[in-house]
Amino acid sequence: MTLTHTPEPGTALWLYAHPLRGSLNDHLFQAGTEALSEQYTVLTSDLHAQRFDPVLGDRDFGGRTGSIVQITADAYRRGEHAADVREEQAKLAAAELLVIQFPLWWYGPPAILKGWFDRVLTNEFAYGDVDSVLGIPRRYGDGQLAGRRALVIVTVGEDARSLGTRGISGDIDSLLFPLTHGTLWYTGVGSFDLHVIYDADSLGSEGLQQETERLRDRLKAIDSEPADRFRRLADGDYHGTRALREDIHPGRTDLGIHLSEALG
Amino acid sequence: MTLTHTPEPGTALWLYAHPLRGSLNDHLFQAGTEALSEQYTVLTSDLHAQRFDPVLGDRDFGGRTGSIVQITADAYRRGEHAADVREEQAKLAAAELLVIQFPLWWYGPPAILKGWFDRVLTNEFAYGDVDSVLGIPRRYGDGQLAGRRALVIVTVGEDARSLGTRGISGDIDSLLFPLTHGTLWYTGVGSFDLHVIYDADSLGSEGLQQETERLRDRLKAIDSEPADRFRRLADGDYHGTRALREDIHPGRTDLGIHLSEALG
Repeated sequence: MTLTHTPEPGTALWLYAHPLRGSLNDHLFQAGTEALSEQYTVLTSDLHAQRFDPVLGDRDFGGRTGSIVQITADAYRRGEHAADVREEQAKLAAAELLVIQFPLWWYGPPAILKGWFDRVLTNEFAYGDVDSVLGIPRRYGDGQLAGRRALVIVTVGEDARSLGTRGISGDIDSLLFPLTHGTLWYTGVGSFDLHVIYDADSLGSEGLQQETERLRDRLKAIDSEPADRFRRLADGDYHGTRALREDIHPGRTDLGIHLSEALG
Repeated sequence: MTLTHTPEPGTALWLYAHPLRGSLNDHLFQAGTEALSEQYTVLTSDLHAQRFDPVLGDRDFGGRTGSIVQITADAYRRGEHAADVREEQAKLAAAELLVIQFPLWWYGPPAILKGWFDRVLTNEFAYGDVDSVLGIPRRYGDGQLAGRRALVIVTVGEDARSLGTRGISGDIDSLLFPLTHGTLWYTGVGSFDLHVIYDADSLGSEGLQQETERLRDRLKAIDSEPADRFRRLADGDYHGTRALREDIHPGRTDLGIHLSEALG
């Protein structure tokens, strides 16, 4: 597959969204970026420290009105995106590995991170219509960011049962499906299994130490893990109807049906 | 059930998040609030017009560090929340009906709306621990906002197949489960069936007219619709394990298992 933005080998981008210094997340961010630096050149986007503005609005439209998908694509083509968006796009384009770290707030990413996706992942930069050469739509596995992999690190206040299969809060894989599938996979980025830190508000110093070690170990071996876990639009599994073919997982309606059986 | 914030009968809050004047959303917002005004006193939170800042950060913590759930509760108790948050909390407390209108961006709410939840729905204002009088946890059906109902109106660029059962993008009810269940129901708010406007980028003027009429009709009859669709934590369906009891929908793992069979 032709890569639209060729990443620089050995470059990673660590996208981080927590407001408090001295927090569990801050600690894991410091320890994690340090550990990853042994294998990668680690770029960081510390969104609170950067005071990143997550509101997609007038300054992103260049005075245009109409479909936001179209007018932001126009702005991208003409190089009219705001400086902060261009800077984030450049970091993302350079990275072959993404790490996305955040606390789970209201069962999703904090606004400052959600808005990074809203503003940075514009049409034509991150995804697009059918490619004139390849003849396939540039989304769901074949987006403009194809070839990249992402590790999602998320801290949660609840325990593994509440967020497990049939857990009261919904299972964490389904809750983050809009991120792993609807955002990352849509733009071509495969994701590793989620790295979840449970009971994050009550870890204690021993728990913090254990979680730090677990993250270091995970990062050390990350290049040997499989990614690319969802079905490609171009594979034909949704052919004609946009719904999954009836012969695949017949009768099932959970979001797990969109996982690919072939691990990449 | 004791209501923590008693709503004013006949008061509604319309929470709106779209950046462009003259858009489909703007049109539906104008027509919808006008139609609803025939039955309700309609308060509005037009987040872009208000330039609402969705980033939960230092000014929300009053100089405290620690668990964000705890320090924002402290700030709430001491009346130290920022003026914009207090204003939104007052509107929410007054409303018995919520309407939440937004375009689906990256398969979730825009950042400006996500951050409204992050900042406004603080611990002790919107939910809490076990109530000392009632003896039940103030969440999942019994949050501090209990007694309210919400209509979620969402515009999407895709068609109903892509977002339907087994659709390639995931079904819209699962994608918005973090909102309807994890946010609204967590704080006690029941939600009506989603009001989805499909193919929102290509409606044309006839389609716009039809969608406007459909929304007006929906609002006119909203008080006769059932809400309260999820299971209450206090009901015992998750007793002991925090996972749904094995005898309820055995074997199923989709998020639909959390729907209550009893419509309220």
